[in-house]
Amino acid sequence: MALKSFVEVSPDSHFPIQNLPFGIFKPEPGSTPRPGVAIGDYVLDLSSISDAGLFDGPFLSGSDCFQEPNLNKFLALGRPAWKEARATLQNLLSADEPKLRDNANLREKSLVPMGKVEMLLPIVIGDYTDFFSSMHHARNCGIMFRGPENAINPNWFHLPIAYHGRSSSIVVSGTDIIRPRGQGHPSGNTPPYFGPSRKLDFELEMAAVVGPGNELGKPVDVNEAGDHIFGLVLLNDWSARDIQSWEYVPLGPFLGKSFGTTMSPWIVTLDALEPFACDAPKQDPQPLPYLAEKISKNYDISLEVQIKPAGQEDSCVVTRSNFNHLYWTVTQQLAHHTINGCNLRPGDLLGTGTISGPEPESYGCLLELTWNGQKPLSLKGTTRKFLEDGDEVIFSGCSKGDGYNVGFGTCSGKILPSP
Amino acid sequence: MALKSFVEVSPDSHFPIQNLPFGIFKPEPGSTPRPGVAIGDYVLDLSSISDAGLFDGPFLSGSDCFQEPNLNKFLALGRPAWKEARATLQNLLSADEPKLRDNANLREKSLVPMGKVEMLLPIVIGDYTDFFSSMHHARNCGIMFRGPENAINPNWFHLPIAYHGRSSSIVVSGTDIIRPRGQGHPSGNTPPYFGPSRKLDFELEMAAVVGPGNELGKPVDVNEAGDHIFGLVLLNDWSARDIQSWEYVPLGPFLGKSFGTTMSPWIVTLDALEPFACDAPKQDPQPLPYLAEKISKNYDISLEVQIKPAGQEDSCVVTRSNFNHLYWTVTQQLAHHTINGCNLRPGDLLGTGTISGPEPESYGCLLELTWNGQKPLSLKGTTRKFLEDGDEVIFSGCSKGDGYNVGFGTCSGKILPSP
Repeated sequence: MALKSFVEVSPDSHFPIQNLPFGIFKPEPGSTPRPGVAIGDYVLDLSSISDAGLFDGPFLSGSDCFQEPNLNKFLALGRPAWKEARATLQNLLSADEPKLRDNANLREKSLVPMGKVEMLLPIVIGDYTDFFSSMHHARNCGIMFRGPENAINPNWFHLPIAYHGRSSSIVVSGTDIIRPRGQGHPSGNTPPYFGPSRKLDFELEMAAVVGPGNELGKPVDVNEAGDHIFGLVLLNDWSARDIQSWEYVPLGPFLGKSFGTTMSPWIVTLDALEPFACDAPKQDPQPLPYLAEKISKNYDISLEVQIKPAGQEDSCVVTRSNFNHLYWTVTQQLAHHTINGCNLRPGDLLGTGTISGPEPESYGCLLELTWNGQKPLSLKGTTRKFLEDGDEVIFSGCSKGDGYNVGFGTCSGKILPSP
Repeated sequence: MALKSFVEVSPDSHFPIQNLPFGIFKPEPGSTPRPGVAIGDYVLDLSSISDAGLFDGPFLSGSDCFQEPNLNKFLALGRPAWKEARATLQNLLSADEPKLRDNANLREKSLVPMGKVEMLLPIVIGDYTDFFSSMHHARNCGIMFRGPENAINPNWFHLPIAYHGRSSSIVVSGTDIIRPRGQGHPSGNTPPYFGPSRKLDFELEMAAVVGPGNELGKPVDVNEAGDHIFGLVLLNDWSARDIQSWEYVPLGPFLGKSFGTTMSPWIVTLDALEPFACDAPKQDPQPLPYLAEKISKNYDISLEVQIKPAGQEDSCVVTRSNFNHLYWTVTQQLAHHTINGCNLRPGDLLGTGTISGPEPESYGCLLELTWNGQKPLSLKGTTRKFLEDGDEVIFSGCSKGDGYNVGFGTCSGKILPSP
C-alpha cells in the first residue's frame, strides 16, 4: 500500500508525498523568501512548520535553517539532517497523521497554493562547474568539428571532463533570456563579425546540488561522494554556438555560455530518487582507482524538451532523453572535482553536461538535433535551425514509479531580442 | 612638496600616504575581521574611524560598510564613495591634520602595528575569471605546444581570451598550498598515470577587483569600465602543468588550476595607481568598436618573483616583469566580459593571466622560464625545473614615484607535499 498524503495529489502530479522536493518561495509578492517542499498543487512552508516546533528530531530541533532565504544552511547539515527532514515531512503530510491534517490554523498558514507563489533560486551558488559526461554528446560534437576518426578525445574515457562555469548568471526557471551579443567568425582569414548570436541553443542538462562539501586539500572518496549530493535539478545551459566556437581555443567556453543558465526551482533529493536507481554504463577502459566505485549508479529519469515557437500557442516536443545515458556518474564527477584538493561548498552546482541518448530523437541540443543547422527541425508549421527571438524552451523531467511520479516540474526560459 | 603623514613611513615602504590600499584584518587572533588601510608599518582600523564619525562626507556618513567583515559593501558603493574614502583618509592621516594626530585615545585604538595583525581575504569572491592577456606568454606557450608557425591562435588578437576560474579555492597570501594530485599523460597511447603533480608551477598575475558591477543583460561600455574597477592585487594562479595539459582539451583548464590561487591582502586602488598610468601597447588589428577605448592605458608596476627553495635561508629572484606588458587592458577585459550580458558583482576578480615580458628574464612562470623543464633554473646552489615541496614563492609589485612607492606588498605561498 503506497504512502498517501491528506493533501490531494493527482496521479500525474510530479509532487506526491514520495517526492517532497525542496525549494525557496515567496508566498506573496512582498514577503520574505523561505524554504518549502512541493506537495501536489501546494507548497508547504517550512518556516511555519519550524516555527510550530514540528522539526523535533535530533538534527533539526533548534536549527534555524528553515528560517533562511536559501537552502545553503540546510545543505551544510548533511545527509542525516536531510533524512530526518524528509522523514518528519512525510510523516506530517501522511493521511494517517493528524498533527497537521487536523490543525486548520497551521494548515492555513503553511500550505500555500502553488499557483500563488513565486519561486526563487533555491541556493546561493558559490561555484558552478559543468561536466561533459554524455558519450553521445561528446561523440556528436567531435564528429561535427573534428570528423569521425577522432570524434572523442583520448582523455574523455579516463576522466570526467569539465570546465568552471559562471555562477552570477544562473537564473530560476521562468526568467527571460536575452540573446547575447558577441564575436563570431565565419571561417578562414575573414575578420570576426560582431552582433547578436546567430546560433543560440539550449543544452538539456541536469545538475547535482552539493551538500556539506570538503575542506581545501581534502579530497572526497568516490564511495562517499553520494553523501555530498543533496539532490538534482534540471538545468538549461544556454549556449551561443557561434560565440563559443570562435572563443573557446585554447581555454574553453566563456561568453558563449555565461549570458545565462536556467535551473528548475525544485531540488529533488537523492533519497526520493533512490527507487529509480539503475546501473551506470560499464566503463571501458576501467577508470583509475580513485574513480572506481563499489556501486556505480545512475537514475532512470525521463527528460523531455519542448519548444514553443515565437507567436504560436502550442509547443512541440523536440527531444526525449534520459539521465541514465550519462557515462560518468555524478559521484565520479564529484570525486574527480576534489581529487586535486579543490574544495566544494554547500550550494555548489555540478552540471552533467548535455544529456544526449544514442538515437537522433534523443539528442540534447539543437547543435546535434539539426546537425549544426544543416537539418532544420520541423515544428508544426515552422522550422528551426537554432532558437529565434520569442521562442520558449521548456524542459521537464520525471521518474515513473508504481502509481506515482517523482518529477522535477519544468525548467523554462523565453528568448528576448538583443538590446 | 609631497603629501606626508604624521605616521612615520620609511622611504622604501610600499604603503605611504599616497597609497592607502584597503584590506581586511584581525587586530588580534580572537577579534572580528574588519576593514583597514595600510600606512607605513601600521594598519588603520576603519571600523574605529567610522565609529568615531570621521567618515562624514555625503557618500559614507551613515554607511555601515566599514563595520563589515569584507569590502564587498564598500565596493558596491562605487567610485564616488571610493574617492571620498580616500580623500577623508589622506586628510586624516596627513601631518597637518590634528583630528587623529592629536587624539591619543583614537590613535591607540585605530592604529595597529602591521606585525601584530592577521590579514584575511579582503573580499567575498562570487566569480573569478582568468584572462590570457600577455602576448609574450601566449606566444611562448604556443611555440612550446604547437610550434612557432601557429604560436598564437587567430582569435587572440581579436578578443581578450579568458576562462572561468574557481573561486572557492582562492586564498590569502601566506596560506600553504598543498601539491595537487591528479592524472597526467606522458605521450602517445600510454595510459594516464595518477599521483602528485610533477610539474607544479606559479603564474605571475595581477587581478582587478570589480566594484558596483552590472545587471544581467546590460553590458558595461568600455569607456566606462574603469568606474567598475576598484583596484588591483597580486595573484598567483598556481598551475599543475601535467594535469592541465592532459585535461584541457576541449573545455579548458580545470583541476590543473582549481587546487589553489593566492591573492595579496592589500587592494591598491586605481586612484592610487593613476600617477603611474602609461599608454597601453598599440593593438593591431584594431579591436572591434565595443573594445575600442578613447584612452587605452596600462600602469607601470614593476613585478618580481622570488623563490625560496626548500631548506634554504635565502630567496632568489627568478623573474622581473611589469604590468605594462599586457596587450589587453583591464578595462577591455571587463567590457568584453559583459558584452554578452554577463553580470559582474562587487568583489568579482578578473585575473590578467600570466604577465610575461619580451625577454627571457621577464617570463612569468616556470613553464616559460625553464622552457617546460628543458632548461632548469639555477638558484644559488640548487636548480629547479618546477616547484618542489617546501619551496616558497614570493611575488612583489611596486610603482616607483618621486620619493615614494605605491606598492602591493607581497603575495606568497609555500608548497606542502601531497597527502
